[in-house]
Amino acid sequence: MGTIPSEKIYEDKVVLAFLDIEPVNIGHTLIIPKEHFENLYDLPEEMAGYIIKIAKKISAAIRKTGAEGTVVSMNNGEHAGQTVFHSHTHIIPRFKTDKLPSWPKIKYGEGELSDTANKIISAL
Amino acid sequence: MGTIPSEKIYEDKVVLAFLDIEPVNIGHTLIIPKEHFENLYDLPEEMAGYIIKIAKKISAAIRKTGAEGTVVSMNNGEHAGQTVFHSHTHIIPRFKTDKLPSWPKIKYGEGELSDTANKIISAL
Repeated sequence: MGTIPSEKIYEDKVVLAFLDIEPVNIGHTLIIPKEHFENLYDLPEEMAGYIIKIAKKISAAIRKTGAEGTVVSMNNGEHAGQTVFHSHTHIIPRFKTDKLPSWPKIKYGEGELSDTANKIISAL
Repeated sequence: MGTIPSEKIYEDKVVLAFLDIEPVNIGHTLIIPKEHFENLYDLPEEMAGYIIKIAKKISAAIRKTGAEGTVVSMNNGEHAGQTVFHSHTHIIPRFKTDKLPSWPKIKYGEGELSDTANKIISAL
């Protein structure tokens, strides 16, 4: 990491958290590991576990500042909305009045639910 | 937990993962702890860390089935899009062609970035 981006919220030996300068809502925070990993696919389990603990801590702090909820989210892969390829976890404050849209839902066809489950189970 | 919902993907002593029957994309999976917690705010750190490890495992399996990426997300609170108040972590397969929208971005006003950071830091 060459520069410290934006306003730092939290730092320890392992991770850095800072405000996203293009926030979805005011207070939108990103947590990154100091060591380089691209996303959840190559993030070691222990590191992923550590990041979620910090996410819980920051999520609670953001709620104390007035947010009514928080979305904690990781976009893994270019086609999953990931634009910066250093693993980052979003903590997005949510407000009753923010009107952010939900993603649309789709339906399974006949037999597709169990076929899909079987495919994922086979890949585990 | 009285009933096993939908198609089970994974189960161990601590968590259960199953297909969301109203998926954003085919293969959309939910991971829940067997013990009751409402969301990340009351989920013990160790449990949150365990869930993310399972999320990594299932995320990799979903990618092997053909998804180009995955979003791993927790909605915490009624106004954060949480509709079922038993902690659940979404693993949403993403595809180049799925056209799911990104949330809009907003801008910080003059001085608002550092004010926001200071408020969150004070609440940590």
